[in-house]
Amino acid sequence: MANASTCPPLTRESVQTAHKRIEQYIHRTPVVTCETLNLIASTAQSERHDGQPDDIPSDGTAKPQLRLFFKCENQQRIGAFKARGAFHALGRLIEEEGLENVRQKGVVTHSSGNHAQALALAAKTHGVPAHIVMPTISTPSKIAGTKSQGANVIFSGSTSDEREAVVAEVIKKTGATLVPPYDHPDIIIGQGTQALELEQQAQQLIADNAALGIPRKTRLDAVIAPIGGGGMLSGICTALHGTGIKVFGAEPNFGGANDAELGLKQGKRIEKVKTLTIADGLRTPVGTIPWTIITDKDKLSGIYSVTEEQIKAALRLAMERAKLFIEPSAATTLAVVLYNEELRKLVEKEAGPEGWNVGIVLSGGNTTVEAIAKLFAAPSKVE
Amino acid sequence: MANASTCPPLTRESVQTAHKRIEQYIHRTPVVTCETLNLIASTAQSERHDGQPDDIPSDGTAKPQLRLFFKCENQQRIGAFKARGAFHALGRLIEEEGLENVRQKGVVTHSSGNHAQALALAAKTHGVPAHIVMPTISTPSKIAGTKSQGANVIFSGSTSDEREAVVAEVIKKTGATLVPPYDHPDIIIGQGTQALELEQQAQQLIADNAALGIPRKTRLDAVIAPIGGGGMLSGICTALHGTGIKVFGAEPNFGGANDAELGLKQGKRIEKVKTLTIADGLRTPVGTIPWTIITDKDKLSGIYSVTEEQIKAALRLAMERAKLFIEPSAATTLAVVLYNEELRKLVEKEAGPEGWNVGIVLSGGNTTVEAIAKLFAAPSKVE
Repeated sequence: MANASTCPPLTRESVQTAHKRIEQYIHRTPVVTCETLNLIASTAQSERHDGQPDDIPSDGTAKPQLRLFFKCENQQRIGAFKARGAFHALGRLIEEEGLENVRQKGVVTHSSGNHAQALALAAKTHGVPAHIVMPTISTPSKIAGTKSQGANVIFSGSTSDEREAVVAEVIKKTGATLVPPYDHPDIIIGQGTQALELEQQAQQLIADNAALGIPRKTRLDAVIAPIGGGGMLSGICTALHGTGIKVFGAEPNFGGANDAELGLKQGKRIEKVKTLTIADGLRTPVGTIPWTIITDKDKLSGIYSVTEEQIKAALRLAMERAKLFIEPSAATTLAVVLYNEELRKLVEKEAGPEGWNVGIVLSGGNTTVEAIAKLFAAPSKVE
Repeated sequence: MANASTCPPLTRESVQTAHKRIEQYIHRTPVVTCETLNLIASTAQSERHDGQPDDIPSDGTAKPQLRLFFKCENQQRIGAFKARGAFHALGRLIEEEGLENVRQKGVVTHSSGNHAQALALAAKTHGVPAHIVMPTISTPSKIAGTKSQGANVIFSGSTSDEREAVVAEVIKKTGATLVPPYDHPDIIIGQGTQALELEQQAQQLIADNAALGIPRKTRLDAVIAPIGGGGMLSGICTALHGTGIKVFGAEPNFGGANDAELGLKQGKRIEKVKTLTIADGLRTPVGTIPWTIITDKDKLSGIYSVTEEQIKAALRLAMERAKLFIEPSAATTLAVVLYNEELRKLVEKEAGPEGWNVGIVLSGGNTTVEAIAKLFAAPSKVE
């Protein structure tokens, strides 16, 4: 990875420069709206006839006026936002060390998920060998996906000690450069690029609506993005800093997966997380560099968490109503605006009757119909 | 319904006029592309490593070059293309009889599915009472959806005699006008409007690609749409007649659901169909007016059918790869281009190495996560 000491500063301009660097390699993913979800989000939970999860008492009375703008990173290349960071990090490495050097040494990472495929794609695009260390227990479709990008897949045990040992071995043998999944400035800046697009696309959609005679505020008031390792959320904080657009984080709270929310309350980063939340992209603790960004109150306005049932309910609504095929991690953002009373009360108070235009980051769509079946199959088939 | 004798002729111009009439009420749904699906479609079935259904021998050797343009009517209002025909038919009725008259008498239809919600929405928009006759066995979500549009839902038995008796009773009592689901010129012309958008949107996408230096044919070569009652397919045939863009139909073949394909072979419309294909929007026989259009070889180039397993495989690919949440009926079109060797051989021969740009109509997205679970749950799940 490019030496952190020579990395561009963590500023909005750096994200703008990064966007120019990577835009030819990534999709400018669509931003869509859904009247039905706006209506549900703008109705008090206690007054809703549908869209509510079973395990939630319907005493939610907050009634914020919400207009949602979904950033469809589920339609990004490799099916998730991770392509942005990987293309940016590799591009920067090539800029610093020269293409021939990088091609000789290659790159390496450990990941069982979207970062593996993202780095494999970026490496293939630049003709660079990629070594991906994956736990033996990874799902076959993810292994196949990574191999299909031409990467050299190496298996390891599933503890972090085991996989780091394998990575060290690869580096020793090949001289490959480690590209970590989130805890690096080049990754953070790369992931932040989606916020620049979302900001512009939402503004355009609002202008189009205004042309139809629907008067509204002219731009986004806030953006909500999921937080796992924090590469994306801290990138979005960086991209939108100084614009007046507030940034919030969304997290599952099952089994302590809300390490960022808890850490902010305790004033201390939580270093280990062990959870089996269905939002499997968000099981990691926040990285050290993302932590320095999200603890800056000028950059992040807060983190809110949701239950497994709330994530499932939001996932169902995204699919059945907005027709968006997303993974559970992506549904946490929609779940927060629909079901987290703390956030809903805040918006009700701050926005008033004018309401807010809120960007909702749908971070990825890499799930399978079998996984959906497992989540929603009737427990006793006697319906 | 507007008197058929005063309806506009079944021509492309009528569809263009219809589009102007309804465009303020409907969504201009997006057209999207997916590199992965283009790659699979352009690979011989026998050479594919993934995307193949289990029950298909992999002896398919045709290797047409296909670039697919998905028309996302799953993101249309009420989740399906039916909104187009309903708004057009009701608009024409109001034009002929006057708004006050139509408001006094109301409209009526029988439907358990998307047409019910579409007519209810159009009626609500114009302040017209809508009576919807639904079989008692309709899924609760569809009943709720229709009621939520403000319609008066009346239950009947599920045979066509039973529901027609109830409709007759409603008409006698209220003077309501029947708006049939597909067998009427105003419905056909309304459904055809999507083809005008698809034609333009694909051309724009191709032009954008050309600007990136990817030389390609400048427009669509063909469009594939599903056929149930035939309102949509015959509307698309009408809309594209004279443009040189070929139109094909896609049908499930389970239990004789391919009545249009078989009817064309026998030279005689099949009047009754009894099938439980998973493509539940396509269980109806072709209507009499659609039949007169699709039997015109200048308008329709052929109908191709697919198995239940092929529909499931296409549904999976649409969701997992293109991240599009669609209902099984919509997946028949993708299934035909991916798995019907007869069509694939035809394209290979006619298109040559240049290939074809093919519009794929994704007709609707009204399914549930439970229905997906039922289709894809592991069989060992002790069901």
